[in-house]
Amino acid sequence: MENGLIYARSGVDIDAGNQAVKLIRPIAQSTFRPEVLSNLGGFSGLFALDLARYQKPVLVASTDGVGTKLKVAFLMNRHSSIGIDAVAMCVNDILVQGAEPLFFLDYLAVGKLVPEKVATIVAGVAEGCRQAGCALLGGETAEMPGIYSPEEYDLAGFVVGVAEQAKIINGSRIKPGNQVIGLPSSGLHSNGYSLARKVLLEVAGYRVDTYRPVLGRTVGEEMLVPTRIYVPLVLSLLEKTDFNILGMVNITGGSLRENIPRILPPGCTVVLKKQSWPILPIFSLIQEIGRVKEAEMQRVFNLGLGFLLIVPSEEAPSLLSYFTRQKEKAYLVGEVVSGNGEVVFV
Amino acid sequence: MENGLIYARSGVDIDAGNQAVKLIRPIAQSTFRPEVLSNLGGFSGLFALDLARYQKPVLVASTDGVGTKLKVAFLMNRHSSIGIDAVAMCVNDILVQGAEPLFFLDYLAVGKLVPEKVATIVAGVAEGCRQAGCALLGGETAEMPGIYSPEEYDLAGFVVGVAEQAKIINGSRIKPGNQVIGLPSSGLHSNGYSLARKVLLEVAGYRVDTYRPVLGRTVGEEMLVPTRIYVPLVLSLLEKTDFNILGMVNITGGSLRENIPRILPPGCTVVLKKQSWPILPIFSLIQEIGRVKEAEMQRVFNLGLGFLLIVPSEEAPSLLSYFTRQKEKAYLVGEVVSGNGEVVFV
Repeated sequence: MENGLIYARSGVDIDAGNQAVKLIRPIAQSTFRPEVLSNLGGFSGLFALDLARYQKPVLVASTDGVGTKLKVAFLMNRHSSIGIDAVAMCVNDILVQGAEPLFFLDYLAVGKLVPEKVATIVAGVAEGCRQAGCALLGGETAEMPGIYSPEEYDLAGFVVGVAEQAKIINGSRIKPGNQVIGLPSSGLHSNGYSLARKVLLEVAGYRVDTYRPVLGRTVGEEMLVPTRIYVPLVLSLLEKTDFNILGMVNITGGSLRENIPRILPPGCTVVLKKQSWPILPIFSLIQEIGRVKEAEMQRVFNLGLGFLLIVPSEEAPSLLSYFTRQKEKAYLVGEVVSGNGEVVFV
Repeated sequence: MENGLIYARSGVDIDAGNQAVKLIRPIAQSTFRPEVLSNLGGFSGLFALDLARYQKPVLVASTDGVGTKLKVAFLMNRHSSIGIDAVAMCVNDILVQGAEPLFFLDYLAVGKLVPEKVATIVAGVAEGCRQAGCALLGGETAEMPGIYSPEEYDLAGFVVGVAEQAKIINGSRIKPGNQVIGLPSSGLHSNGYSLARKVLLEVAGYRVDTYRPVLGRTVGEEMLVPTRIYVPLVLSLLEKTDFNILGMVNITGGSLRENIPRILPPGCTVVLKKQSWPILPIFSLIQEIGRVKEAEMQRVFNLGLGFLLIVPSEEAPSLLSYFTRQKEKAYLVGEVVSGNGEVVFV
């Protein structure tokens, strides 16, 4: 007190924040697209829309976090890929409507600001942006002692994309008889971690470095696999082919049971055939150890399907062939029937 | 364990989340502008740009949180206005470049999801959006037990605005001789709360319900005053008058010392005259009790100035008269001189 309180002593280090900004700037700039007008460090990010490409451009925006997958990153002290998850959760959401991701901003709140750690996390965000083809236009790193533990943080993201209004995909033309094609997930993605952690790290008593042969890696490594970004595959499909994609579903919080109904028009139900795609080993392991009921599994975990496409039945075989030619796995997992917006597993 | 683990038992309540979404939907819809194409509950928010209004529209985006001002809301168990702060921190940042806020998304992470509490917080966000004239296009409410205490949460926001490219204000035309006009803050805004809480609630030993005559209210009420949103006043100035606004500054993290240099071109320094605007009582109280050095005050707290405008000296008197006619306080607080990007207080 002798010299009066300064801010670093009360738990917020402005100099560390400035150092973090210096480390982040080149990382973000490496993701810039030609439309980006400003460098980081201004009050905001500037992005000039290329109007020549659109008749009626519609901005499509989404925000999401990575949930308690963060706890796994904390346990493993491995922070380089959680940013990919933050981007994936957002861009897959806007991809559902056929939008191309343009730019992304991250919000990172930390207990104690360590510039190198922040840079590692943001490098993951930049990698996700590269995979999704969008610019990391800006972000906020907030030091909030007393809300986060010194070693912990939260990470959320925000994406803006663009779609031609006439080409927006919203599920409204879906009808009974349509087929559902599923694209594989990379693992847990970023949902269900409270339950997954409870089962694997408490009930089973595994540590993150426990090696499980059925997974082919440690429990922690499996839990930290980044969420798959479907943007390059699906945007290329939409832009370069004439398939009649009637609806798409991102399997996010609420999973297969609760996400599919979000795009179904009245009078439609989806029947999923349980044997039609491979359930990833991590899900069988969780179900077995936690004795989790099947219906609960279906509304918490993606079970191996991260993204769905709904097409007229006559197009399903050629769409599956298309994915095969792209060397991408895809499965015919179900169909649309008459009903009241349910998801039925047979 | 007899019936297997279900998700609510592991700390995440999907049903509470669905209930929160139901409560939030009408609150968000009340902020919609004609350009909003979708309702909440899809995978993303859709916003059709009104292209007729722009030659070369540039999107301007920013993200920010409310920092440890949240701790005051927790202490007072008062959650209705912290959302205004989240909006203010973002929209004031893009306003600096002359952008009109179009839409906003919020990220709310909670320890335990109580639908009514979430709705109260989001109602504050919606109020902020109304003040700023933007649509609350979407948001995420994440339940993250184990990262947040059951009673605590974090709140961040993302805004996208639009500006005509030729009219973007970036400070590049600022030169020595220009005058600096300041608009009053409403109080602490959302910066410096780690130090403010340390001084007021620890060093001074005040409680949030301690009444301080110099403040005219309790310490907690003073600390929870929402950040002022400068959008209506400044956008109206930009759109309806011909003043030559050369640069604007949002006094956010880093305050007067660190924000003014963000827009200064090479060769410019700003001299602020300390006696030219009223220092709000809250700042004098903090400085006195915490024996905080003046330079530290100037880089942590806004000291009563929340937003600055830089204009040619010949326009300063008429701009001050303009604000007077609008019944808004404004002060001639300094001028631009030759220098190396410093902020000098005299």
